[in-house]
Amino acid sequence: MSSSFGTLFRLTSFGESHGAAVGAIVDGMPPRLQLSADLIQQQLDRRRPGQNKLGTSRNEADAVQILSGVEDGLTLGTPIGLLVANTDQRPRDYGNLQRIPRPSHADYSYQMKYGIQASSGGGRASARETIARVAGGAVAEAFLQQCYGVEIVAWVSAVGTIEAPALDSDSLQRSAVDSSDVRCPDPASAAAMTAEIIAAKAAKDSVGGVISCVCRNLPAGWGEPAFDRLEALLAQAMLSLPATKGFEIGSGFAGARLRGSQHNDLFVAKGNRLGTRTNRSGGVQGGISNGEPLLMRVAFKPTATIGQEQHTADYDGRPALLAAKGRHDACVVPRAVPIVEAMAALVLADLALRQRARG
Amino acid sequence: MSSSFGTLFRLTSFGESHGAAVGAIVDGMPPRLQLSADLIQQQLDRRRPGQNKLGTSRNEADAVQILSGVEDGLTLGTPIGLLVANTDQRPRDYGNLQRIPRPSHADYSYQMKYGIQASSGGGRASARETIARVAGGAVAEAFLQQCYGVEIVAWVSAVGTIEAPALDSDSLQRSAVDSSDVRCPDPASAAAMTAEIIAAKAAKDSVGGVISCVCRNLPAGWGEPAFDRLEALLAQAMLSLPATKGFEIGSGFAGARLRGSQHNDLFVAKGNRLGTRTNRSGGVQGGISNGEPLLMRVAFKPTATIGQEQHTADYDGRPALLAAKGRHDACVVPRAVPIVEAMAALVLADLALRQRARG
Amino acid sequence: MSSSFGTLFRLTSFGESHGAAVGAIVDGMPPRLQLSADLIQQQLDRRRPGQNKLGTSRNEADAVQILSGVEDGLTLGTPIGLLVANTDQRPRDYGNLQRIPRPSHADYSYQMKYGIQASSGGGRASARETIARVAGGAVAEAFLQQCYGVEIVAWVSAVGTIEAPALDSDSLQRSAVDSSDVRCPDPASAAAMTAEIIAAKAAKDSVGGVISCVCRNLPAGWGEPAFDRLEALLAQAMLSLPATKGFEIGSGFAGARLRGSQHNDLFVAKGNRLGTRTNRSGGVQGGISNGEPLLMRVAFKPTATIGQEQHTADYDGRPALLAAKGRHDACVVPRAVPIVEAMAALVLADLALRQRARG
Amino acid sequence: MSSSFGTLFRLTSFGESHGAAVGAIVDGMPPRLQLSADLIQQQLDRRRPGQNKLGTSRNEADAVQILSGVEDGLTLGTPIGLLVANTDQRPRDYGNLQRIPRPSHADYSYQMKYGIQASSGGGRASARETIARVAGGAVAEAFLQQCYGVEIVAWVSAVGTIEAPALDSDSLQRSAVDSSDVRCPDPASAAAMTAEIIAAKAAKDSVGGVISCVCRNLPAGWGEPAFDRLEALLAQAMLSLPATKGFEIGSGFAGARLRGSQHNDLFVAKGNRLGTRTNRSGGVQGGISNGEPLLMRVAFKPTATIGQEQHTADYDGRPALLAAKGRHDACVVPRAVPIVEAMAALVLADLALRQRARG
Repeated sequence: MSSSFGTLFRLTSFGESHGAAVGAIVDGMPPRLQLSADLIQQQLDRRRPGQNKLGTSRNEADAVQILSGVEDGLTLGTPIGLLVANTDQRPRDYGNLQRIPRPSHADYSYQMKYGIQASSGGGRASARETIARVAGGAVAEAFLQQCYGVEIVAWVSAVGTIEAPALDSDSLQRSAVDSSDVRCPDPASAAAMTAEIIAAKAAKDSVGGVISCVCRNLPAGWGEPAFDRLEALLAQAMLSLPATKGFEIGSGFAGARLRGSQHNDLFVAKGNRLGTRTNRSGGVQGGISNGEPLLMRVAFKPTATIGQEQHTADYDGRPALLAAKGRHDACVVPRAVPIVEAMAALVLADLALRQRARG
Repeated sequence: MSSSFGTLFRLTSFGESHGAAVGAIVDGMPPRLQLSADLIQQQLDRRRPGQNKLGTSRNEADAVQILSGVEDGLTLGTPIGLLVANTDQRPRDYGNLQRIPRPSHADYSYQMKYGIQASSGGGRASARETIARVAGGAVAEAFLQQCYGVEIVAWVSAVGTIEAPALDSDSLQRSAVDSSDVRCPDPASAAAMTAEIIAAKAAKDSVGGVISCVCRNLPAGWGEPAFDRLEALLAQAMLSLPATKGFEIGSGFAGARLRGSQHNDLFVAKGNRLGTRTNRSGGVQGGISNGEPLLMRVAFKPTATIGQEQHTADYDGRPALLAAKGRHDACVVPRAVPIVEAMAALVLADLALRQRARG
Repeated sequence: MSSSFGTLFRLTSFGESHGAAVGAIVDGMPPRLQLSADLIQQQLDRRRPGQNKLGTSRNEADAVQILSGVEDGLTLGTPIGLLVANTDQRPRDYGNLQRIPRPSHADYSYQMKYGIQASSGGGRASARETIARVAGGAVAEAFLQQCYGVEIVAWVSAVGTIEAPALDSDSLQRSAVDSSDVRCPDPASAAAMTAEIIAAKAAKDSVGGVISCVCRNLPAGWGEPAFDRLEALLAQAMLSLPATKGFEIGSGFAGARLRGSQHNDLFVAKGNRLGTRTNRSGGVQGGISNGEPLLMRVAFKPTATIGQEQHTADYDGRPALLAAKGRHDACVVPRAVPIVEAMAALVLADLALRQRARG
Repeated sequence: MSSSFGTLFRLTSFGESHGAAVGAIVDGMPPRLQLSADLIQQQLDRRRPGQNKLGTSRNEADAVQILSGVEDGLTLGTPIGLLVANTDQRPRDYGNLQRIPRPSHADYSYQMKYGIQASSGGGRASARETIARVAGGAVAEAFLQQCYGVEIVAWVSAVGTIEAPALDSDSLQRSAVDSSDVRCPDPASAAAMTAEIIAAKAAKDSVGGVISCVCRNLPAGWGEPAFDRLEALLAQAMLSLPATKGFEIGSGFAGARLRGSQHNDLFVAKGNRLGTRTNRSGGVQGGISNGEPLLMRVAFKPTATIGQEQHTADYDGRPALLAAKGRHDACVVPRAVPIVEAMAALVLADLALRQRARG
C-alpha cells in the first residue's frame, strides 16, 4: 500500500532513479473530463532537471506518455497509466556509495529495511520518484479546476536564512512564481536566494528552504474527521516528500504563541457565504475546509548529497571519508514547487470525491 | 474510512461529546500479549478532565471497559472493543451555539459538511473523541513495549511565548513529565507556563503551546516509502488531533535555514550498529527509522472556545456577539501529552507490523 | 483491516461469543437520514437464537444500543457505535473442546493462526459475530431504502436435498418469507424443510442449505471494475459468512453449461430505460448493475458442531471420540436469512457511495 | 481503489483493449527474491491469444517488460512496474457497437456508469485487462514458491455439459494440464470438450465452462477473519474475473445437500501435523487455511460476443439486429486457466504477508 496515496482518487507509483522508467497509475479520475499529455507535461517541465543553472546538471526531457484511460482528449473513468522513461542514467557515478552510506540520505535506512538496494543513486529514494507525483497531481488538478475552479499556487518563501516578505496569496499566479529561476515571486528575495544557492554550490555544499502554498476557491466541507482531516492528509502528503522536515497550516508554530483572543478568526458575511476576517486557521476548521484559502508551509532540509568531504563511517562502522560525486541540486526548493502543488492537488481531489459521496 | 487509522494495526473510533459513550475497536493487535484495562486506564487518567486546576471543570472518570479480544489478561489476536461511557454531559450549556458558530471552532465547517450537527458542544469535533485514541494508543504501546522495548515520552515544551530549554530526551521519563501539572519537566519553565495558563484563564482567554515527543529503542527499518514514510504518518497522526497547526521532525523549520554541511548527521559506529553523531534527522532517513531516537514537535493553537466577548457573525451572516459558556481548557497541551504519545504509538505499531510482514 | 468491510460505507466489528458484548462501528452513513434502534432491532430479532423450535436453545434478547452518530432520530454523518451485550454465556459447556478440535470447525485453524484461542465456544468464529453484520446491514439498508427505494429479500431455497421451486422474486416480500419458521415462502417446501431439520436434530446431526437473495430497484451503474465488481464484492461478502461454501450470481454454475445464444440476455425497452428480456446475468454486466434485479444464491454447509460421536483426533494427533455439547442450530439457513440480506446491503451501500463520488 | 487488489501484496492495473498498453504495479513483493521477465512471460504465454485453433484469431506476443523493482534478477522490495504493449489493435471491427450494446456484455452498464466509453471493443472490460493479473500473479507465485513451496494448478473441469471425472489433485502438474489445448488433463474429456468448442465456433456461438484449481503446501493459518477470510478473498478474486458466475470452495453447493455427519472432515495425525481424512472443507476452516490443499471451482458463462444474429435493442430502446464481428474466443476457459492461477496466487501472497505480520 505504501506506493499508493488516496482513497477514491488514488495515485500508485513505481520507479527507481536509474531503472528503465518511472510511472504511475491514477485511479478514480472521474469520466468525461479534459486531459492531455501536454497539460501534464507543463508541470513536469517545471520539475525537470536541467532547466537552469540552479539545479542538477542531469538533463532529461521527462516526456510523459498517457497509456490508458483517455480517448480523444477525454477521460474514460478508467485508470490512467502514465509513463516517463529514464534516459540519462549514469549508474557509474555512484560507485563508492556501495561501501559508504551517504550521511542523512536513505542509503543506510534502505539497507536496514530491505537488506538490498539499487546499485546506484537513490534508487526508489531518489527525487525522480516525484515525477509520478507531479504527473498524477496534474491529473488531479485538471479535475479540481474543471469541476470546482480550484487554483493551487506554491512558491519559494525561504532559502537558507533568506525569507521572502509576506505577499498577497489571494492573487498570486504561477507566472509570477516562475518569473525567477528560484521561484520566489518577490524579486529582491529571489536575487538573494539565487546568490545563496550559487554560493552553496560553489562551496560544494547545499542549502535548505521553505515552500509556501495557497489553494483557492475550495468550497467549505472538504476533509474527513477524525483521522483524514484536511490538514492531516496535507501534512502526510508533504512529509512524504523527500527532504521535508516540517509542515504548518495557517498560523503554524507561530500560532502556538498566541492567546485565543488574538488567534480566533471572527466570522463575517462575504457575499452569500460566511467568511472570516482573518485566516490564521489557514482555511480549515475542525479538519474541514471553511471556504477561505488554504495556506500551508513546508520545510525542506539542505540536500544530503554534497561534494564536500565528510568524516563519516562505512557500513561496517569503520571511519570513512566521503565526497559525493553524481549530480544533485544544491537546493531542492525551486524544483519542488510543482511537487508541492501536486501533493496538494492529490489530497484535494481525494477529499472532493469523498465529500461528493456524502451526497 | 475517516474514522479508522492504520493499515495492519488499525484503530476505529466513534463518539460524540454528549452522546452515550465514546469508544474504539483496535484491530490487528498480535495475540498472546499482556493487556489489561488498568494499563489502558493509566494513560486515560493522564488525559481525563478535572485532574487539576489547569484544565476544564468537566469531571469524568473516563473508565475504560475491554469488551472483547482479551482473555485472562492475554490478547487473542481478535479485535479489541473499548468503551468509555460519557457520564457528565450537560448539553444545555451550549444553547446559543446553535445560532452563532464559534470562531475558529468546527461548528461552521461541520454544518457546511454535514448539513446537520450534534445539538450541543463539539459533537464529534470535541476533544472527547481523543479518548478513543488514548485507549487505542495504550494498546499499541503495550505491543511496542513487550515486543521491542520501545519507549515513548512526550512533554510540554512551550506554552504561549514560554519555551522550555532543550533537555536530554535520551533519558526523560514520564514520571519527570508528570512532576508538574503542566507536564513540562523543567521546573522553572513549568512554573512560568502554569502562571501563563492561569493568567489566560483569568482573562477568559486561552493560550497555545507546543508538545515535544521522543520515541526510543526503535529498530532501524520502520517506515514505508513512498507515501507512508514514518514522518509522513506521524505528521498525519499529529495533524489529525484537534487544534494542531504544525509538525516538525528532527531539525524541522530550523533545519531549512542550514547548509548541508551543517545539517548532515555523520555516521559513527555505536556498538554493533551504525549510529549518527548528531540527530538533526530526528531518527528518520528516507522515510525509514535509522535506529536513533525519533524526535518531533507538534504545535497547538490556543483553544478556540473562550469566555471573552467576540464580535463575530451568526449562521445568517448577521453581526453577533459571542461569549462562550460551557467548560473548556484554557490550554490544551498539558492534557494532550498522552494523546500525542498515543498517536505516535499507533503509527509505530502499524509500521512495525508492516515491516514484520516483509520477513 | 480484517474486521472492517467496505471502502466508504464501512462496518468494523468486534466480539467473541462468550465475552462481554459484540458490536460494531458503522462509518460513512450519510447525514440527515432516519435511523432508530427499533429499525435495527427488527433484523436482529429475525437473526436471534431462540425464536422457535428449529434453532439453538441459546436464548438472548440481543438488544441493540446506538451509542453515537444519531440524534433525534437522524444520522449526523459521524460514526455510529452499535452495542449488543452477551447475556447468556455458558463457557462451561465447551470444556473438552480445549483438548479436541471440532471437525470442520474453526478450533484447529484458529489455534494454528493465533497460537491461542477463546476458552469457550467459537470465540470470534462464533455465529454471534454476525450480530454486528446484521446491525450494520440494517443501517445500510436504511440508507438504500430512503435514498434509492432499494428492496432486499432473502429466503431459504433449499435445505439438504429439498429444493423449493422457482418463485417470482420480483414481488417477494419479507412477510411471505417469515410466514414459516424455516423462512421458505413456498408452503409445501417449507413443511418438508422443517421436517428435515427436525429429523436431523433428532439424529443429533445437522443439515446444510441454500439461501437465495434478490435486490430490487438498484439503478444501473453500481459496481467498480476491475477488482471491486458488484458480484465480486457480493461473493466476498457472502463467503465471509461462517459455514458458506459457494456463491452464484444469476445463472451461476448452470450458466456454464449453456451456449451463448441460450444465455445472453437480449435488450428490450422497459419504460424509458433499457432492460433485458431474461435475467441470467443476475442484474450485473461487466461487474456493474444493469438495472435488473440482482439475483444470487449462497450455499451453507451443515453445522459442524453435532451431537453425534465423531472419531477424530485431539490436538496432539491421538485418536479421540468427540460428541459435542453446547447449543447450536441443526441448520443455520433460517436464521442466516437476515444475515445474507445484511451483507448484500453493506455491499450495495458502499458501491452506491462510490458511484455517487463519480458525480 | 477499484483497480487495486490486496492489502500488503497489492496489484494495481491499467489498460484498455485497444489503447497503447496494459500494465500493472505490484507493490509489496518482498526483497531479495528471484524474479525475471521470463518467469512472468511463461504464464502470459499460456494466456495469450492465438496459441491454437481454439481461441481468438487476435494474435499478440504480449511480451512483458519489467520497468522497476528488480535488479540483477533480484527484487528490491520496491514497486514492480510491468508493461505489455498492445500491438494488434483493430478498433474498426467494432463500429456498430456504438449504436447497439452487446447483450450480456459490459457495453450498456459501462455507458450507464461512466456516461462515456472506449470507442472500440471492450475497453477496460476487455479480457486484455487480465494480462495485468497474470503478470502480477506470476510475481506473487514467485514469492509463494520460493518462501513456502506453494504449488498452484488450475485446469478445465467442464465445457458446456461435458464434465471431466474427478482427478487426483494432490499430484496434478501444469504439464499435464497443458497436454491438451483445452487444458483438461483427462484425455477423453479433453477430446469431447475440444469438439464442443469447435462445434460452438462453427455455429457462430459460444459455450461456458468450469475451471477447478488446487493450491498445495500452504501452511495452516492463512486467512483473516472476519471479512477477509481465505475463501472470501478467493471468491472476490475469482468473481472479479470477466464472465464468471459462480464460485465454490471444497464441497460447494453439493455440500449444502449433506448432513453434518457426512460432511465433517475428521482429524487424523499426518506426520507431525494434524490433517483431515477427507477434504470437503477445501482446505479452509473458519476462514483460515488448515494445511490441507485448497480446492475451488469457478463457473464461466459462455462468451457474450457471438456471431449469430441476436434480436436485441439499441441504446435508444429500438429493436435492433446484432451479429457481432471482431475477434473473440468461443470458450474462455482454456485461456482463463493461468488467470485463475494468478488470482489465487495474489490472494495467497497477500494473506501470507498478513500472517507474517502477526509474528
